[in-house]
Amino acid sequence: MSERGAAGPGPAAIQVSRIMRPDDANIAGNVHGGTVLKMIEEAGAIISTRHCNSQAGEPCVAALARVERTDFLSPMCIGEVANVSAEITYTSKHSVEVQVNVLSENILTGAKKVTNKATLWYVPLSLKNVNKVVEVPPIQYARKEQEDEGRKRYEEQKLDRLETKQRNGDVIFPVINPEPHTVGYSQSSLIHLVGPSDCTLLGFVHGGVTMKLMDEVAGIVAARHCKTNIVTASVDAINFHEKIKKGSVITISGRMTFTSNKSMEIEVFVDADPFVDEPQERYRAVSAFFTYVSLSKEGRPLPVPQLLTETEEEKRRFEEGKGRYLQTKAKRQAQMQRAAQQ
Amino acid sequence: MSERGAAGPGPAAIQVSRIMRPDDANIAGNVHGGTVLKMIEEAGAIISTRHCNSQAGEPCVAALARVERTDFLSPMCIGEVANVSAEITYTSKHSVEVQVNVLSENILTGAKKVTNKATLWYVPLSLKNVNKVVEVPPIQYARKEQEDEGRKRYEEQKLDRLETKQRNGDVIFPVINPEPHTVGYSQSSLIHLVGPSDCTLLGFVHGGVTMKLMDEVAGIVAARHCKTNIVTASVDAINFHEKIKKGSVITISGRMTFTSNKSMEIEVFVDADPFVDEPQERYRAVSAFFTYVSLSKEGRPLPVPQLLTETEEEKRRFEEGKGRYLQTKAKRQAQMQRAAQQ
Amino acid sequence: MSERGAAGPGPAAIQVSRIMRPDDANIAGNVHGGTVLKMIEEAGAIISTRHCNSQAGEPCVAALARVERTDFLSPMCIGEVANVSAEITYTSKHSVEVQVNVLSENILTGAKKVTNKATLWYVPLSLKNVNKVVEVPPIQYARKEQEDEGRKRYEEQKLDRLETKQRNGDVIFPVINPEPHTVGYSQSSLIHLVGPSDCTLLGFVHGGVTMKLMDEVAGIVAARHCKTNIVTASVDAINFHEKIKKGSVITISGRMTFTSNKSMEIEVFVDADPFVDEPQERYRAVSAFFTYVSLSKEGRPLPVPQLLTETEEEKRRFEEGKGRYLQTKAKRQAQMQRAAQQ
Repeated sequence: MSERGAAGPGPAAIQVSRIMRPDDANIAGNVHGGTVLKMIEEAGAIISTRHCNSQAGEPCVAALARVERTDFLSPMCIGEVANVSAEITYTSKHSVEVQVNVLSENILTGAKKVTNKATLWYVPLSLKNVNKVVEVPPIQYARKEQEDEGRKRYEEQKLDRLETKQRNGDVIFPVINPEPHTVGYSQSSLIHLVGPSDCTLLGFVHGGVTMKLMDEVAGIVAARHCKTNIVTASVDAINFHEKIKKGSVITISGRMTFTSNKSMEIEVFVDADPFVDEPQERYRAVSAFFTYVSLSKEGRPLPVPQLLTETEEEKRRFEEGKGRYLQTKAKRQAQMQRAAQQ
Repeated sequence: MSERGAAGPGPAAIQVSRIMRPDDANIAGNVHGGTVLKMIEEAGAIISTRHCNSQAGEPCVAALARVERTDFLSPMCIGEVANVSAEITYTSKHSVEVQVNVLSENILTGAKKVTNKATLWYVPLSLKNVNKVVEVPPIQYARKEQEDEGRKRYEEQKLDRLETKQRNGDVIFPVINPEPHTVGYSQSSLIHLVGPSDCTLLGFVHGGVTMKLMDEVAGIVAARHCKTNIVTASVDAINFHEKIKKGSVITISGRMTFTSNKSMEIEVFVDADPFVDEPQERYRAVSAFFTYVSLSKEGRPLPVPQLLTETEEEKRRFEEGKGRYLQTKAKRQAQMQRAAQQ
Repeated sequence: MSERGAAGPGPAAIQVSRIMRPDDANIAGNVHGGTVLKMIEEAGAIISTRHCNSQAGEPCVAALARVERTDFLSPMCIGEVANVSAEITYTSKHSVEVQVNVLSENILTGAKKVTNKATLWYVPLSLKNVNKVVEVPPIQYARKEQEDEGRKRYEEQKLDRLETKQRNGDVIFPVINPEPHTVGYSQSSLIHLVGPSDCTLLGFVHGGVTMKLMDEVAGIVAARHCKTNIVTASVDAINFHEKIKKGSVITISGRMTFTSNKSMEIEVFVDADPFVDEPQERYRAVSAFFTYVSLSKEGRPLPVPQLLTETEEEKRRFEEGKGRYLQTKAKRQAQMQRAAQQ
């Protein structure tokens, strides 16, 4: 099933299918990237929690620690069926790698398209003591190379997680009467009160719920900037450093950092505010970069107005965004060349 | 997978898994029967629509025509994973039989229990002309007997559908200052405005949405009667004679018809009111009987206060309910004897 | 930001943006007034709970006590962004006044319109003892007059709250075979089982959830009366005298009380029924008047069929409604004259 997979889908694989409804999509009928991310994470949470409890030991709940960079390969539409399949592809002593594939299926024509391939890392937390990470039962690999490749991916993401700064000092201030296409013009924020259905058995927010809200804010920023139909093109790797407790208020803020000819990069921050019965201060829980494209009615990418940077900070962020953009482009070209040579 | 199945699960089988959330359950933590019925119907709608479009021909959407009697074998709880699997088990020229199994899985302990086995009948309606039923591609059977048994089930349900009276004249009148445990005391009704997310691609309400609302009303009637924690025990066969259009207002009304020592039978009516831009009058869309039991904190069935019937009509309905109750009981005992003899 | 505001938005102000989805609107695409009321209340609950916990003291949750009369100045549509901003404008020893503004933004054209201005009063209840009202930390005012004006508003609403009768004896009786345009013809009621997502941390229903359900019933009454596309025009001041607990069943009933040439007034009652494990009887929790208008496809107000009153009670209520209508009209004309003179 997966090139890098364990020995077949087996009992560890999980399948989720759901018809896309109007509320899952924007007014042009394109399913929100956030809806897809939420489904992906739910499948991942089920399969990793199930695996981590598969041997006698301390009961635990798998918490999302990281999502690798994810590309949205083709848009999904209202009425199509999203088929999400997840399997465990690597386990370290304290973490589980889950590979999730999303296929969109037009059940009228039978046409299927790959929409996403995502890789998620989960960490099992004890049901009795949420600060304790329990041990993960090892999986069996069909071939030795699968284990080696998995270990390599594990080491890489571990390094990246250590390096990530949460940009804690970075705050989005409102701007009075901003000019069109400036950063201040499109920046947006949203507040959400964390309810019971947003949370795992441990009483902390599901990573998928957070990602869905992040995509919602990023989408508003993108639409405000280019005033056309926009869709999520990709999400950079996201690290979930801090848990968010039930009853917290989360503020999700987004601002545009970079535009290429046909894409927009939006930085999104999630700040949590325990705010009742908790001595804790507001803290930065997650941050991430979303890339959006603007689509014509025929579904082709449209040119995007250039972001007007004003302050030194904005110019610096624009250059950093450009760096990420060129790096991704180079990586993709290298992959395509490799594929062509095979 | 299924005893009566076609040649293995094959490409036609579908699997859906979802974690049960607080919003899916009552305050005692038991998942609403209606939540399960909605998941079952969604899986059935996907698999039958997919099958009916699997050969070149007129694009169509499968509409729920009937659900066979369904027993809720064991309660499901918040945090458990509902695993729903559906497969097509028979096709006639114009209808599809879908068999759906629901397993509840405690992902912490690995324990799995069969929660439901349901049989649904779908009819494919043309996407261009909702009043036209298109032809169903035949499925392949592994053994000749499977086809014969399927045909028998098909003929039986066809007969039953013709016989069903919609009880069109039957209306639930409110009672002023009713005494506890009378019919008027617990009868309840609910209004729902049909929104876009309730509907199929054809713009008509999903059968599963209707069943969920029916279970909600039946549950309120049961709780008002016995004022304890109640759960759905079974649902009698439901026939969907009339479609309900987007934008309609539906009134779902329920009244208790019968109580045994440990169960309550509630009759539920669904009336649709097109009401905007439509010359059509209010009409009876569906009616059904739900059976509820009352559970102690340990999950054991509690005695139920006897229903006090006052009018001749109520006494007649009580006797009819008793008839259904005794018939079901006899059928179940016969099944158990047969099972014991095998 | 606000004329009556404290010293600038400051740390206490909050800004929330959300895209309006199909489920937020009726079939004509107009966002339900109830959706807007729910967003307003959520912003108010967050800002006032945060403020009341901003100093060392007993942890508490702010509960909605009152919403002042609110006008819906222009309709919002699917795909538009609702921008909700809330700030605290007055504090008494035991209550907080929150001013909320709602802007609708068409992100494709950039056009913005003021949709609502609402004033809400919250009371902080102790997290440990829900019957104890804790003290509110005072806010700083930029100018002395702001405090004086706030105190005046506080005294006014206090008086009004004392005066409000809950119309406890008033019950909506069903009518058999009512004539079109009579009160009995359009009256409607809805039952809702209070789930976990409807509730605050204290386990009581959010005021915004109640208001959304009230608007839903009022909208059904209005649509049944005039059978056209209808939208909420205004909501009279609502006092929340009684809390509603998780697990309760609430019955929301509405009946038309008055029609002018182009508007309809609907009275809505909310009755709560604790009903499981609670000795308490059903009680009237809230009541309010909603005003609706009927809109043509171009968004212009249409004439409304006159309400046919039959009983003495209905005639009396019609006259009272007329009184409220004329009073509001006179107030608005006075405001416009004052504005013209400035």
